[in-house]
Amino acid sequence: MIIVQKYGGSSLATAARIRNVAKKIVAFRRRKKGISLVIVVSAMGGTTDRLINLANMVSKSLQGRELDRLLATGEEVSSSLLALAIRSQGSSAISLTGAEAGVITDRAHTKAKILSLDTGRIREELKRGRIVIVAGFQGISDEGEITTLGRGASDLSAVALAKALDAEQCEIFSNVKGIYTADPSKVRAAKKISQISYDEALEMAGCGAQVMQGRAIELAKKFGIPLFTGSSFSKEKGTIICKEPIVEAPLVSNVTLNEAEAKVSIFRVLDRPGIAARIFAPIARAGINVDMIVQNVSKAGYTDLSFTVAIEELERTIKIAKKIARQIGAGNVGFDKDVARVSIIGLGMISHPGVAARMFSVLAKNGINIKMITTSEIKISTVVPKKDGKKALRAVHKEFIK
Amino acid sequence: MIIVQKYGGSSLATAARIRNVAKKIVAFRRRKKGISLVIVVSAMGGTTDRLINLANMVSKSLQGRELDRLLATGEEVSSSLLALAIRSQGSSAISLTGAEAGVITDRAHTKAKILSLDTGRIREELKRGRIVIVAGFQGISDEGEITTLGRGASDLSAVALAKALDAEQCEIFSNVKGIYTADPSKVRAAKKISQISYDEALEMAGCGAQVMQGRAIELAKKFGIPLFTGSSFSKEKGTIICKEPIVEAPLVSNVTLNEAEAKVSIFRVLDRPGIAARIFAPIARAGINVDMIVQNVSKAGYTDLSFTVAIEELERTIKIAKKIARQIGAGNVGFDKDVARVSIIGLGMISHPGVAARMFSVLAKNGINIKMITTSEIKISTVVPKKDGKKALRAVHKEFIK
Repeated sequence: MIIVQKYGGSSLATAARIRNVAKKIVAFRRRKKGISLVIVVSAMGGTTDRLINLANMVSKSLQGRELDRLLATGEEVSSSLLALAIRSQGSSAISLTGAEAGVITDRAHTKAKILSLDTGRIREELKRGRIVIVAGFQGISDEGEITTLGRGASDLSAVALAKALDAEQCEIFSNVKGIYTADPSKVRAAKKISQISYDEALEMAGCGAQVMQGRAIELAKKFGIPLFTGSSFSKEKGTIICKEPIVEAPLVSNVTLNEAEAKVSIFRVLDRPGIAARIFAPIARAGINVDMIVQNVSKAGYTDLSFTVAIEELERTIKIAKKIARQIGAGNVGFDKDVARVSIIGLGMISHPGVAARMFSVLAKNGINIKMITTSEIKISTVVPKKDGKKALRAVHKEFIK
Repeated sequence: MIIVQKYGGSSLATAARIRNVAKKIVAFRRRKKGISLVIVVSAMGGTTDRLINLANMVSKSLQGRELDRLLATGEEVSSSLLALAIRSQGSSAISLTGAEAGVITDRAHTKAKILSLDTGRIREELKRGRIVIVAGFQGISDEGEITTLGRGASDLSAVALAKALDAEQCEIFSNVKGIYTADPSKVRAAKKISQISYDEALEMAGCGAQVMQGRAIELAKKFGIPLFTGSSFSKEKGTIICKEPIVEAPLVSNVTLNEAEAKVSIFRVLDRPGIAARIFAPIARAGINVDMIVQNVSKAGYTDLSFTVAIEELERTIKIAKKIARQIGAGNVGFDKDVARVSIIGLGMISHPGVAARMFSVLAKNGINIKMITTSEIKISTVVPKKDGKKALRAVHKEFIK
């Protein structure tokens, strides 16, 4: 029986924390005889940022191949150190790079996709009784070049390995104790959730909640691999992300607040088929992630389009939006930085109408003006003035989470 | 025509210095059309110490394989950054690990020996017009495991590559402008030497002068590769290490002072064949480098043996020496930490007798007591009280260097 565990950068940020993780792993191994352990690691906290900084200082135009080789060293360091620490505590361990672990990717440097997994070497080392430490976030292309899978993709490495190894469980350890009904640093009443569905976790990741990498949740959902998330610093039980729980789903399982977005509007857009694509395709090509999109009802053949983007992308977005507006003969482009997005997420919404109305009336009772609304099957998002964000979060949390 | 250049850790210690080295390389490349450049790099200054420190903090017993993988990341980082910097300045460059550069070693982790060099990939990249950046200090064993060649071995990587590539020249850049007649920070009158023989450079390396790694000089001597040493920060000409210069060699080309050694003595050793081996073999097996060895004239079948070791090895050495002394029925073991070694090195000594006598009389005139003497064909070493070390260095330098 194989268990895959992944430890994040904050769990490995110092020598003392690495020793602590090693101790946990060795104790787990001794407690559960007969279980084979594959450990996926991120770079020590802060390392990747430091390396990207260095790269930006020596070069104006980063080149994918060299950047990937540079960044991949981060996980190589943490994997070797963890193997040293585990050996020092008396268990047998070996570190492997992504390439050695058989993570084969396409050639898209800095954002490679996993094509296949050749787990021969891992299985061989497990057979020898070793704990296998795999450098996450990285793989190798068919050309034999080191690739990386994108920021936060060590989660993805862990899920992909769990699938390929037919693992019993995939456990993702970080510095948070699990998934909460809201960010506990902002909502004192927030409660830890013991079980949540893939879809809810995915919506949360999309709302900027620091759950887990979205691609990793998607992959786990695709293969039906239960994901355990918890803290490497605590013995408390964490949260399991899995298929819809058998118990009746709560109406709302999570309330999120995202204060890092801005709203952009393009006014007086001629309302005809294909116009949305003409607007959003160039923005996507520039690598800008568009979040909420709202199109108002058309009047006299014209409509206004609003959407949100991360605040650090606002300047680039406006430049592109203005160019598009000229091309399609639209009106002005406006923006608003003083916004916050408050969302509620819950599988239970599907079967319970009226949830949106209840959310809007809570905001109204608290005197909070709603600037934008979008809804999906299991999520309702509202954009409110930034100054009202935390107040809205708490009010909505109080309304729905009992 | 191929030129191999090696840049040391201090030349690459910051992003600004990496940019500076890149600028030098790109300018050199533009000035000298038709020349192919292979650049060997050390880790950014301080990196290897930082990694060793981390390893010691997580583990009491370092294991070679994991330590080598950990340390090898240092040169991977600097090679990628230098490639990024060179590309950013408009030249084509690619970084290679020791393994990719074809540096095949034995399996002796942390102190591997180069067995062979397969330069196919390097030549291929050079043919494409690229500047090839090779991570120094590292190679790969026949088992496909990353190995390292020992501290300071990037010099060795450079010389070995220069030989395998049939390079025109091998240039070793660091933060010093070349080889001086004495350490310029201690002797104001010290002069830069334009040319020096392999043997003199080897003796200097053995005396603790920061010239270049001894193994690298040995290899260059074996294959007759001229080594250019100079500063990456300066346009000044450096020093060439080569066969005996055609011009008549100076009597003394270099005076060194080593204040980091201690003297150990084993008293009343029975003077019979094989006794030196019985004493020094266990010390060598413990990995302790013994420097000067002096055996006094035997009296009534007994002799006293003295030798020097690095101060940080003193404690371990005494422990071993005491054990040996018991085993061979010798007397006490003594030590002296307050010593300094002053050496003169020069090819000219071979043909000029009386150099030793001149050195001793200079020390006597300055009231400096000599505690130990050893001589070789081209070197005379004396051990003096530590407090007199610098005075002795300056007096001897003044006597011999005109």
